[in-house]
Amino acid sequence: MNKAVLFQQIKIKKSFLCIGLDTDIEKIPTHLLKEEDPVFSFNKAIIDATATCAVAYKPNTAFYEEYGAKGWLSLEKTIEYIRSNYPEIFIIADAKRGDIGNTSAKYAAAFFDKLGADAITVAPYMGHDSVLPFLNHKDKWVILLALTSNIGSADFQYITSGDKKLFEKVLETAKSWADPDQLMFVVGATHPEEIGLIRKIVPDYFLLVPGVGAQGGDLQAVANFGLNKECGLLVNSSRGIIYKSDKEDFAIQAAIEAQKIQHEMETILLQKGII
Amino acid sequence: MNKAVLFQQIKIKKSFLCIGLDTDIEKIPTHLLKEEDPVFSFNKAIIDATATCAVAYKPNTAFYEEYGAKGWLSLEKTIEYIRSNYPEIFIIADAKRGDIGNTSAKYAAAFFDKLGADAITVAPYMGHDSVLPFLNHKDKWVILLALTSNIGSADFQYITSGDKKLFEKVLETAKSWADPDQLMFVVGATHPEEIGLIRKIVPDYFLLVPGVGAQGGDLQAVANFGLNKECGLLVNSSRGIIYKSDKEDFAIQAAIEAQKIQHEMETILLQKGII
Repeated sequence: MNKAVLFQQIKIKKSFLCIGLDTDIEKIPTHLLKEEDPVFSFNKAIIDATATCAVAYKPNTAFYEEYGAKGWLSLEKTIEYIRSNYPEIFIIADAKRGDIGNTSAKYAAAFFDKLGADAITVAPYMGHDSVLPFLNHKDKWVILLALTSNIGSADFQYITSGDKKLFEKVLETAKSWADPDQLMFVVGATHPEEIGLIRKIVPDYFLLVPGVGAQGGDLQAVANFGLNKECGLLVNSSRGIIYKSDKEDFAIQAAIEAQKIQHEMETILLQKGII
Repeated sequence: MNKAVLFQQIKIKKSFLCIGLDTDIEKIPTHLLKEEDPVFSFNKAIIDATATCAVAYKPNTAFYEEYGAKGWLSLEKTIEYIRSNYPEIFIIADAKRGDIGNTSAKYAAAFFDKLGADAITVAPYMGHDSVLPFLNHKDKWVILLALTSNIGSADFQYITSGDKKLFEKVLETAKSWADPDQLMFVVGATHPEEIGLIRKIVPDYFLLVPGVGAQGGDLQAVANFGLNKECGLLVNSSRGIIYKSDKEDFAIQAAIEAQKIQHEMETILLQKGII
């Protein structure tokens, strides 16, 4: 998927919502535990209930790897289900990978060719040759960590060299590696004040913004600082949507929550003249 | 496994060799392709042929994830095989994970509880709360990326803040998170000149040193700069050992290469008075 197609979906759905499929068997409704694959059953219900509101889904691999090969199978089935039933939706493997060149090439094969994701999150620490192998896949995306939503982001991402913080250096360096049709950046919603600064460094790149909802980020502030003329934002909510209820009505409650966020996003997109 | 037990194994085997199980189905001998699980069959033969020379094995998850759930199963079987047959050997999941706290806790469950690895490699970019959940597991280890072996290490790891480079800052910050019984650092063999500097910052911590062999690093130089009184080094070779031959004699050739490196290591350990 390229950027134009993604923006088209945003305009059609009037939404820039990404839903994180961080599916934890200890948090899903107990009635699903009798299913053959409770994680997939949960995801399927969540996806069917929210697909009209979401332009992207983002399964985080940790939640699947916890169950080993069986968990990886749930992940494969989930991505295949989205791909078959909602081909317009952008699928992000939130994997935070990155290794030496020949190894990153294997990760690219794993996530793009085998699993069929559109995008993968990548950690920048190992530099350009850990990232470039992912960019050899046409219409596939790297979403590079820049400024993360957690408190530990302060440990290294804010280190200052000259007049630049490390996350600024990551943005400035990485934008020479790929254009905005293959590269996005992760910027936590917990740093709205920095999103404006980041938007100046990478005006045309999409930002994937986690941290709205359970982590405390504010959608309106993120939008004020981060929107560009092609939207330029995918705002993620995971726990705030998928665990809205732990009863049999979990999918309906997730749909209601996703619709609520979609309505807020629609209002914002209209106000800003983007749709 | 704690550090004393690891050092005991180093003394018994007169070796600080870690063998990387970066098993690529395109590189293994073709006669194995008729096996039900060629990757596991290859690993099993390599492990049986080299276990007397190696104190650690290091499967890199990328090479398994390329084959999805099936690959993950090969990884599970490989680790179970080492655990059952060579319980003294230290098992490193070279996964380079790291995420927000609740997600890193899931990775810790995946790699320590489910998969049974002793250690996992972790990327430092996201800071302390992305690393600490791994340290809640007794006798399990984090091996944190500090200075990696690839050329891209120059992009960010050498950024200077005040009088410190980023990799020095990572070492100094991370050593406050855990003692040398649960934390090691990845330092590429391609930077022997920096290993001496790093040894001064973290005198008592083990260093996992990839990059000897295919990547061009030199064992003697690494040992000169990196050894401490409890050895303090695990030097990894992957391709240089496991792909020494692509014929039916692959396991024998791997054993010969591993023995060659073990002999070099024995000489070094004797010269330095460590054994």
